Amino acid sequence: MAFLKSSVGIVEPKDFRFGLDEADRLELDCGRALGPVTIRYETYGQLNARRSNAVLILHALSGNAHVAGLHAPDDPKPGWWDEMVGPGKPFDTEKYFIVCSNVIGGCSGSTGPRSVDPSTGERYNMAFPVITIADMVKAQQRLTLHLGIEKWLSVGGGSMGGMQALEWALSFPAMVNSVMPIATTSSLSPQGIAFNWVGRQSIMGDPHWAGGDYEELLPDKGLGIARMLGHITYLSEESMDRKFGRRLRAQDRYSYDFDKNFEVESYLEYQGQRFVDIFDANSYLYISRAMDYFNLADRGDGDLAAALSGVSCPFLVVSFSSDWLFPPEHSRRVVRALRNNNVDVTYCEIKSSYGHDAFLLEVDVLGSLISDFLARRLQEVEDGK
Amino acid sequence: MAFLKSSVGIVEPKDFRFGLDEADRLELDCGRALGPVTIRYETYGQLNARRSNAVLILHALSGNAHVAGLHAPDDPKPGWWDEMVGPGKPFDTEKYFIVCSNVIGGCSGSTGPRSVDPSTGERYNMAFPVITIADMVKAQQRLTLHLGIEKWLSVGGGSMGGMQALEWALSFPAMVNSVMPIATTSSLSPQGIAFNWVGRQSIMGDPHWAGGDYEELLPDKGLGIARMLGHITYLSEESMDRKFGRRLRAQDRYSYDFDKNFEVESYLEYQGQRFVDIFDANSYLYISRAMDYFNLADRGDGDLAAALSGVSCPFLVVSFSSDWLFPPEHSRRVVRALRNNNVDVTYCEIKSSYGHDAFLLEVDVLGSLISDFLARRLQEVEDGK
Repeated sequence: MAFLKSSVGIVEPKDFRFGLDEADRLELDCGRALGPVTIRYETYGQLNARRSNAVLILHALSGNAHVAGLHAPDDPKPGWWDEMVGPGKPFDTEKYFIVCSNVIGGCSGSTGPRSVDPSTGERYNMAFPVITIADMVKAQQRLTLHLGIEKWLSVGGGSMGGMQALEWALSFPAMVNSVMPIATTSSLSPQGIAFNWVGRQSIMGDPHWAGGDYEELLPDKGLGIARMLGHITYLSEESMDRKFGRRLRAQDRYSYDFDKNFEVESYLEYQGQRFVDIFDANSYLYISRAMDYFNLADRGDGDLAAALSGVSCPFLVVSFSSDWLFPPEHSRRVVRALRNNNVDVTYCEIKSSYGHDAFLLEVDVLGSLISDFLARRLQEVEDGK
Repeated sequence: MAFLKSSVGIVEPKDFRFGLDEADRLELDCGRALGPVTIRYETYGQLNARRSNAVLILHALSGNAHVAGLHAPDDPKPGWWDEMVGPGKPFDTEKYFIVCSNVIGGCSGSTGPRSVDPSTGERYNMAFPVITIADMVKAQQRLTLHLGIEKWLSVGGGSMGGMQALEWALSFPAMVNSVMPIATTSSLSPQGIAFNWVGRQSIMGDPHWAGGDYEELLPDKGLGIARMLGHITYLSEESMDRKFGRRLRAQDRYSYDFDKNFEVESYLEYQGQRFVDIFDANSYLYISRAMDYFNLADRGDGDLAAALSGVSCPFLVVSFSSDWLFPPEHSRRVVRALRNNNVDVTYCEIKSSYGHDAFLLEVDVLGSLISDFLARRLQEVEDGK
């Protein structure tokens, strides 16, 4: 019923500011406090009178608050999950009030390392405190209070967004009616930590990085390499075989040089170049570090089920068969720990060849899971369960 | 019977030079010719009177001619496959005459990009011609003639060594009695091409690379990043989980900074730093590019079985279950194509958690396969089959 699925149209990002007083600042896991803090967010749909239909979408490493719609009529492309959010779409804006905010540490409107530190009048850069996934969620909780939402109908997201969803369940269990962690993990694997390390070394090794204090010359080479590397981990071997194979670029012959000769090389270079236009190198450092430190089991002395013992709301956990960055086994681990706590968990491993990127691409099957899950939650709330 | 397995002792590398005359130069796939060419090689054991017991070992990207033994009594460590080559070992030097040569394009004695171009009196650097796996093998064939060997009892190696083994079977079928491709592929996957691309961009993006003409300042940062990235692809998620998990370094707490905090970060940094002391950045470019261009099926117009139609000698093909860089399916593809040509193939997928590195680590089970395979080949030759 594609004709029912239209766009949310033109949307306007909003800013919420807090932490102007010292007492109101955000206390971070690292022991420091951050303030003032700006949270850039967008909303789609209407909050109902009971304030019971609010859904928080949480974005991944390179995402931002702009999930759906356009910022201007001539915007060349819509938000990053536009196929999922809108009237008649899985996050149905005719039923739900959808919110998404840019994470702290980010570079798309919320306070991050490129923001000006009011105490110095200069950019934080590497003086910005190292943040965690829990810190991101703590900032979102402030936004939640500001919006007058007592309890989210659901919080959900893919990849790092899924980490935040899990963190919500732990940090603020009374504020979530349900949780949807997608293509994610309860702790970043050593392989993930290793890829992040290499990406950061590439950024910090770029002479234009200049200890984080870049201004005119940007560490685009280093950031581009980090992004190209990331991209490889988001695809599967199968999807790369299908998408590129060993196909050569236009000239269709081995060039016997070091310029891009294979289509996959072209693709990576394009992705790397496009990314440096929209993303900041220092934010990449901080956000990837936050992912490294994510390990829910820490809160149960190494026992994930113990860490999740305060959780009782329903979960929808989704993984993708060919995702090797956040493999299905990581989701199954979460599911087992939740079931140990008698949590009502719907788990689905979607068969897909798209690798980790599947959470952005398998919108039909993922969408119908989410649509059903949200509808059931709304029904429960309306039934007063 | 570990007591029987002793070392080959002190070995001396030798150099073979050819291509001093224009007519004798090595004609390369790229259309250019290379000469003079030096091939650095080592031999272990004795060539028998019938010259029927010679085995050629082919090394991987970062390998060299020094497979076994020590170069000096105080050498801190032996050759790269010392557990496999020696008296009583799988490549038994009491039975076989073992040869290994450094590939052209390399940086361990054979002619490569850092060699002096006699026509200019300066290092080739990026003026060095782009070489292929077939070019490497062609140079090895010259060494073979020089050594007076008409037919190898076997040629074999792991990873890029396995590519060369396969190439031997295609390029010089009359000169091999058997072939042992291990943890390899008949064509580098787009994922492999992509990782190589990122590694090369990292080297070529290092300002010390200087278009390849580095002298005092070396592109160690770029090369180190390429190596760290490579290392991740050589391990499996399972082996990283076991070897490092999320363990922290000595201080055993989150440091909330960007220095190495996890053990896996320390390990990668150490591997990267160690590598730049022993390997050359330009060689890394050339050798990784040779791997990109490797695709046996090209020689059968895309049909691997057709490409292998001239092959008839026995094969031992070995893969490792957790190798995701050269997955078992790639070996099975080779096996199917060989069997289509009625080739006698022994195929073994070794269950191992070590990933691609398994070909260097699973010496017991791999060793017994090789030992048996070589013994049967020697028996056949002695029986005059």
